[in-house]
Amino acid sequence: MTGNLQFDSQGRLRHFLTIDGLSRETIHQIFDIAESFISVGEREIKKVPLLRGKTVVNLFFESSTRTRTTFEIAAKRLSADVINLAVSASSTSKGETLLDTVRNLEAMHTDLFVVRHNQSGTAYLIAEHVPPHVRIINAGDGAHAHPTQAMLDTFTIRRHKGSFEHLKVAIVGDLMHSRVARSLIRALNTLGTSEVRVIAPLTLLPTGHESLGIKAYTDMREGLEGVDVIVMLRLQRERMRGAHIPSEQEYFNLYGLTLDKLACAKPDAIVMHPGPMNRGLEIDSAVADGLQSVILPQVTNGIAVRMAIMSLIMGGSSESGRPA
Amino acid sequence: MTGNLQFDSQGRLRHFLTIDGLSRETIHQIFDIAESFISVGEREIKKVPLLRGKTVVNLFFESSTRTRTTFEIAAKRLSADVINLAVSASSTSKGETLLDTVRNLEAMHTDLFVVRHNQSGTAYLIAEHVPPHVRIINAGDGAHAHPTQAMLDTFTIRRHKGSFEHLKVAIVGDLMHSRVARSLIRALNTLGTSEVRVIAPLTLLPTGHESLGIKAYTDMREGLEGVDVIVMLRLQRERMRGAHIPSEQEYFNLYGLTLDKLACAKPDAIVMHPGPMNRGLEIDSAVADGLQSVILPQVTNGIAVRMAIMSLIMGGSSESGRPA
Amino acid sequence: MTGNLQFDSQGRLRHFLTIDGLSRETIHQIFDIAESFISVGEREIKKVPLLRGKTVVNLFFESSTRTRTTFEIAAKRLSADVINLAVSASSTSKGETLLDTVRNLEAMHTDLFVVRHNQSGTAYLIAEHVPPHVRIINAGDGAHAHPTQAMLDTFTIRRHKGSFEHLKVAIVGDLMHSRVARSLIRALNTLGTSEVRVIAPLTLLPTGHESLGIKAYTDMREGLEGVDVIVMLRLQRERMRGAHIPSEQEYFNLYGLTLDKLACAKPDAIVMHPGPMNRGLEIDSAVADGLQSVILPQVTNGIAVRMAIMSLIMGGSSESGRPA
Repeated sequence: MTGNLQFDSQGRLRHFLTIDGLSRETIHQIFDIAESFISVGEREIKKVPLLRGKTVVNLFFESSTRTRTTFEIAAKRLSADVINLAVSASSTSKGETLLDTVRNLEAMHTDLFVVRHNQSGTAYLIAEHVPPHVRIINAGDGAHAHPTQAMLDTFTIRRHKGSFEHLKVAIVGDLMHSRVARSLIRALNTLGTSEVRVIAPLTLLPTGHESLGIKAYTDMREGLEGVDVIVMLRLQRERMRGAHIPSEQEYFNLYGLTLDKLACAKPDAIVMHPGPMNRGLEIDSAVADGLQSVILPQVTNGIAVRMAIMSLIMGGSSESGRPA
Repeated sequence: MTGNLQFDSQGRLRHFLTIDGLSRETIHQIFDIAESFISVGEREIKKVPLLRGKTVVNLFFESSTRTRTTFEIAAKRLSADVINLAVSASSTSKGETLLDTVRNLEAMHTDLFVVRHNQSGTAYLIAEHVPPHVRIINAGDGAHAHPTQAMLDTFTIRRHKGSFEHLKVAIVGDLMHSRVARSLIRALNTLGTSEVRVIAPLTLLPTGHESLGIKAYTDMREGLEGVDVIVMLRLQRERMRGAHIPSEQEYFNLYGLTLDKLACAKPDAIVMHPGPMNRGLEIDSAVADGLQSVILPQVTNGIAVRMAIMSLIMGGSSESGRPA
Repeated sequence: MTGNLQFDSQGRLRHFLTIDGLSRETIHQIFDIAESFISVGEREIKKVPLLRGKTVVNLFFESSTRTRTTFEIAAKRLSADVINLAVSASSTSKGETLLDTVRNLEAMHTDLFVVRHNQSGTAYLIAEHVPPHVRIINAGDGAHAHPTQAMLDTFTIRRHKGSFEHLKVAIVGDLMHSRVARSLIRALNTLGTSEVRVIAPLTLLPTGHESLGIKAYTDMREGLEGVDVIVMLRLQRERMRGAHIPSEQEYFNLYGLTLDKLACAKPDAIVMHPGPMNRGLEIDSAVADGLQSVILPQVTNGIAVRMAIMSLIMGGSSESGRPA
């Protein structure tokens, strides 16, 4: 499962499946396009005609209103027609395979599938089988990857910090089960981030983190010392039931981001969270709504980054400036 | 919870949350704009470009296919992009607050939220927290208000009766639990309706009706005597189970609108109902489908009124006459 | 329940409810329009402005993501606004009748209803009551009819075989419960197909097939002998539970289309299936994905045929060639 599948024979990005295999240049190219779309969101008429007459299918095998909405808004701002398809895993088990479902949609001359599935590799599997004119974006597959989230996170860091070369970034929380973290660490490494740290209880630390060139901490204050960027992860409350973490209160005491712990980081450190937040569990409201939080700018940037990825893989260049 | 929140510092309507605080002039201004949109619905191409490039979010915490559809059609006729979001109450209880959900949508540069929630005051709460460029329409909050319904009801009365000064209006049915009735009485008073009556069994009469300047009747024939407009309310069948009303048959006998009871009103009285109707419970089919019924025109007017409210609070003037 | 309802007084097609009563010329006219839309699906900008400013309502009383998607895509390619309404049977039983729901939608100045319902005749019932400017398409009603599927099936045959005069067509599977088969046999007869055969176990053969002028076979190899077209039907696995068929394995052995059985047909015979397929039950993957399969072209043709039907009954001519 390499990232090569996402390039065509001329080396152009054709699908967006994973951060793996993306060059630093490609990532910055996407950021540059996204930068041009930031202004589109601030216009009176928030539409550009880049995907007019194209059909984008939100193919969600796993329910996620929030992620679906961001892609729907991004596609509509590009003037595409959007079809939302919530496909239950059960329906694809009724004799018709996942690929039959996909081939049917292709046969309707749809152009771009935004795929979300709770099994790792689904977006790859689909990308392997679609004809050349169809594009795939991985909107989250199992615990494997969530590359558009990693792109919007690093785009947000670039917008606030400029460059990655001297940055120290700490990712805090349930790293073991997080598809967000996996993709993000890859992106940070590719972008030449000076130091990437992970902070979690031993039970939630990722396996093989040494090979990723990251430093692991179980003490949060120690891990936050001198960092420029803090990325808090969402803690699935379901983890409580298992043996992974003790109680909510104890987790908050040890790993919840409070103003007090935040003070260990650099004074101008920014705080990020992919949402939805568990206020009072992994993050205190005083931090979430505080001056160092860039959690809402992340959402804004997410629309621009998704527009950038869609238009790039669909062969469009940066937005022309001409309203739709 | 006053209506002042819905005006900006220059006194322009910014949100549409309640009839409270709207002047007679503002209501008639909305009616005049709605009048111009009536013709749009009758055109070959039923679109005007007033909200092109804007994103309207139907944020429904309470399911209502019918109401959602009317706002979706109204917004699309204004050329807006529409995002339908059915948010279960449960999802907003999972650590992320209602306001987090709203702030996320704002951060995506959406422009207008149409909010429905089963708790009174939700639309206010949201309006209090959104930035200046975001607009809110209350599409029904708990038992409190349903102001767009009141607007389409009174717009329908104006279209059929011209002015309110000499009108007698009777509202019949479950006034105690009706958000429709609350908003409607307010609108009728503001518009200078000569006389507003309510007709219901004692158990369903609103409390404090004297202070609203309305007359209450428990005898339907007496209450309908000489009225110009009859507004029937939907009776929730759930009320049967409680002690509020006796049996369906007895309710129909006493408070169901039949041709016979209708004869007590003026010969040119009009009959209204917000829908969906319980035929044979609060209204007889002979009346619902009869010559005096304006129940379907209410629906048509509802699209025009919602287009008018949307375009007014979004800062657009009346439709330009130019097709989209 | 004749097909006359679908014509206006000048004999023009107004609704699309059933294949009954359609002349061979009308069917070919729709095919010719569909042919012009095939190219639209292959363009850079896949939109034509024929239904711009029109509102199409997908009124689905029975859930069918697949069918809904095809109509949604077809309507959006014609530049219509699309409203998806999944109406549960329960909501229409709550005092408001089916016709009240429809009249409400009409009153919103919607133009075209695509109706799916699990009861035969629902689309007719609606068509009988709508005003002249509203159009109805039957997207499947109970076990009765699925006329747009029959149109795309016969359009696919015409595209691959040219004419129907010397064709032998075999329909295989659960003919007794299939609305697809009923409509298809009618279309094949109207188009002058030389020979229509049905192949099924005795328990799944349609009643009265002799009167339809078709030959019935219980032996699949015998029935496939020398045919030009094979239409496989989907077998509802629910039938297993009843006494209709023995086991899945035995059904596949006797009536599953394998390469081996396919060899009984003409060497250039085409294989069709309305989808979704039960691979390994009614069709072997080697056939479904084989050279003679036109199952995916059926899907492509289905979009073009639905665009053709929509634009014809809405009074538009064939697409103008001008992009939207």
